[in-house]
Amino acid sequence: MLDFRPILFVLGLLLSVLALAMLVPAIVDLSYGSSDWQVFCASSAVTLFVGVALAITSRGYDASFSVRQAFVLTTLSWVVVAAFAALPFAFSELNLDYTDAFFESMSGVTTTGSTVIVGLETAPPGLLLWRALLQWLGGIGIIVMALSVLPMLRVGGMQLFRMESSDTSEKVLPAAAQIASAIGMIYVAVTLLCAALYAAAGMSWFDAVAHAMTTIATGGFSTVDGSIGAFDSAAIDTIATVFMIVGSMPFVLYLRAVRGQPGALWADTQVRWFLSILALAIAVMTAYLVAQPDDRSWGEALRLSAFNVTSMVTGTGYATDDFSRWGTFAICALFLLMVVGGCAGSTTCGIKVFRFQVLYAVMRGQLAKLLHPHGVFTPYYNRKPIPEAVAESVMSFFFLFALCFCALALALSLMGLDFLTSMSGAATAIANVGPGLGDIIGPAGNFRPLPDAAKWLLAFGMLLGRLELFTVLVMLAPRFWRD
Amino acid sequence: MLDFRPILFVLGLLLSVLALAMLVPAIVDLSYGSSDWQVFCASSAVTLFVGVALAITSRGYDASFSVRQAFVLTTLSWVVVAAFAALPFAFSELNLDYTDAFFESMSGVTTTGSTVIVGLETAPPGLLLWRALLQWLGGIGIIVMALSVLPMLRVGGMQLFRMESSDTSEKVLPAAAQIASAIGMIYVAVTLLCAALYAAAGMSWFDAVAHAMTTIATGGFSTVDGSIGAFDSAAIDTIATVFMIVGSMPFVLYLRAVRGQPGALWADTQVRWFLSILALAIAVMTAYLVAQPDDRSWGEALRLSAFNVTSMVTGTGYATDDFSRWGTFAICALFLLMVVGGCAGSTTCGIKVFRFQVLYAVMRGQLAKLLHPHGVFTPYYNRKPIPEAVAESVMSFFFLFALCFCALALALSLMGLDFLTSMSGAATAIANVGPGLGDIIGPAGNFRPLPDAAKWLLAFGMLLGRLELFTVLVMLAPRFWRD
Repeated sequence: MLDFRPILFVLGLLLSVLALAMLVPAIVDLSYGSSDWQVFCASSAVTLFVGVALAITSRGYDASFSVRQAFVLTTLSWVVVAAFAALPFAFSELNLDYTDAFFESMSGVTTTGSTVIVGLETAPPGLLLWRALLQWLGGIGIIVMALSVLPMLRVGGMQLFRMESSDTSEKVLPAAAQIASAIGMIYVAVTLLCAALYAAAGMSWFDAVAHAMTTIATGGFSTVDGSIGAFDSAAIDTIATVFMIVGSMPFVLYLRAVRGQPGALWADTQVRWFLSILALAIAVMTAYLVAQPDDRSWGEALRLSAFNVTSMVTGTGYATDDFSRWGTFAICALFLLMVVGGCAGSTTCGIKVFRFQVLYAVMRGQLAKLLHPHGVFTPYYNRKPIPEAVAESVMSFFFLFALCFCALALALSLMGLDFLTSMSGAATAIANVGPGLGDIIGPAGNFRPLPDAAKWLLAFGMLLGRLELFTVLVMLAPRFWRD
Repeated sequence: MLDFRPILFVLGLLLSVLALAMLVPAIVDLSYGSSDWQVFCASSAVTLFVGVALAITSRGYDASFSVRQAFVLTTLSWVVVAAFAALPFAFSELNLDYTDAFFESMSGVTTTGSTVIVGLETAPPGLLLWRALLQWLGGIGIIVMALSVLPMLRVGGMQLFRMESSDTSEKVLPAAAQIASAIGMIYVAVTLLCAALYAAAGMSWFDAVAHAMTTIATGGFSTVDGSIGAFDSAAIDTIATVFMIVGSMPFVLYLRAVRGQPGALWADTQVRWFLSILALAIAVMTAYLVAQPDDRSWGEALRLSAFNVTSMVTGTGYATDDFSRWGTFAICALFLLMVVGGCAGSTTCGIKVFRFQVLYAVMRGQLAKLLHPHGVFTPYYNRKPIPEAVAESVMSFFFLFALCFCALALALSLMGLDFLTSMSGAATAIANVGPGLGDIIGPAGNFRPLPDAAKWLLAFGMLLGRLELFTVLVMLAPRFWRD
């Protein structure tokens, strides 16, 4: 049997931290005079009690983790945090039932951004901040995981991103912890910069901070129903576009840039591919928007296209327009762009650019091999040969992604959702984007009208996507539980 | 420079055979008293002239093919045959323009079954037979290719299906030719059997033969606008279902069964997987149809489900009902099932079952490896270990299939087609199915209203899918044309 005690101990610590985090919105509510502060204090008390109880009863056991324990811990962390982070939603004056509260909470910690709340403008400020905070914590959480846990677990080709330092056996953990805290500081600094710029462009400080947190986390929760579009400011659109891109690049490269390798970012082929894909998609969409009969100028089209395409590719999920009404090409293109995602080691989800690079390199090799059956063609990633095991791992990820997408879309359609809603709902959940397409869950819609079963399914899809599929699905294999 | 002369020689021979084949519908038209026989004679004369001219001017050169020449020949055969087989459509009393004629012809030789002709009931009999004949010849053509050329070219994992005899160097070609002709005889015999059963179930002999040819070829052209549904006979539905399945299994196994290994079929894991997937899909769809508010009995639901699901999975494309109106789950499920296809070495297209088996085996290995990073997990196909090169080849195929599908769907949506039409149109073309989903190109619709550019694109998609993508795309690589 798997020893759950070290897992429960870490979960207890996580919950205790979450309980402390709940005090931030409590303070904000108090300062704004909203009675909702009691909700956060109560939720915090419950969470703290469970967290401390777990930590105390399971402390003192062997603290080193086996691979299987690491898988269980990773998945359970996200589930348990989402379950308790849902409490303020369930207890608040919004009166969400627990399904809706859990959906909102999972959408937060996975940085998805799908919402079931209508009337954000009248929601208590603490609750708005809580949503932003969940995405922000989820964002740094996944960056740290992508640095430390996922490469160790060799999930979906993530072993490409083992830190150089982890190749040597000495001082691995201290180095990792040091890097993680340095990246945490960069994360905070970038968020503050983003908030300052938002404020300078006209947002209130509250909106500026809340949006900065969900921008850097490529999360997409807003403080108003109309999302960023409600501010109707070209400056704000531009700031958001830039910082969504900042949130989609490998944070470890920012660290290198700060530590004296300013060229590290541009030297990385993943960053180049990501920016090229994005630029191409924006250019094509701009031209398409101008060609539509809606009489948009090039400037207007570029602003709409740059913002919304970036939002969908990076999986942020903000909107400044109902792009479900841009025409059939826009719908198809955005649907496909949703699953692309950003770079590994960022806050984005989706398939991620490095996987497309690996797949493309392998495919090129295959084409070359067709012509020269006995030739040897080594695929490269970032100027290094791609190990066979990584190539297989990436290709399996791609297949598994397709399978999960199909299964989720089918299940959603079985609940009576139409073709576009089922397809885009599955994609938006697994790729942690936020809105789907169409009238129901599109940027002008809301996830509230969906049946409860669909909400649980979508929440599971978000978890799957956030943890790179394998991390969750490996536990479904009977072999996992055999000794 | 590539030496085109041996390629042109073979193309000349193919066109001469095609010209002779055109005389069959001419004779039928004559015997039915339709003046359309002149169209076939004229088309035959043109085709024969070009064919003989090509063959004579390029004969006598080195007859052995390089790998590059084999790729060019394979792709050009399909294109050139489709181009000339379109002549009777263009010249006939239906007055199709050449775009429509080429679309119909390509849809025929690739055994797709999408049609632009409305009013089949009043079309000359020769033309109906010509459509059936094209699919039938395309069907045996692809079986022979899958036996001989594709494994040699190592396209998309097809090297798994090299004949055992080709492992030994002696008498390879005679053996291949012998096997091909034996399989040809089986193909004829099965078609005759199917036609006899159709006739016994009430079809006219003409309809029986025409439908038998398009059933075995999993093509899907019918002689009436209402497809098989127009006959409204449970017996005919059942016969069609059985023979679509017969056409979707590896014909080389029938040969083995006839030659004294009656268990060869069931021993093959690809056959087992194919039948299991089909049975599962039919069962689920039957239950879904019963649960719908349309008041269908279990028997009725099973009949509808078995026929139409088999038709879509095998890529035949017959219909007995407008399944676009079965509800959202049916639409999603059929859309996804379209790309599955049948077994390698059959007349079906799509991704094909053996690739799913390989992908599944590799993915299982990956999951096991997550738990035991230093373990060795060999994936198996048909009780034999899958060589690394085959696994990579199959995974590249899967990725390329997804890429081609996305590109085609995007291009279609750019022409203003709606989401469902673009998506299902791309899938139905690449997987050589026939109808799409929705009101325009669904089973109750027709491809005629699409813009010309969309028809050319779809025809290209059919060619891509039929030749396993790589065969066509390898020629787009600059390396291909370099010496």
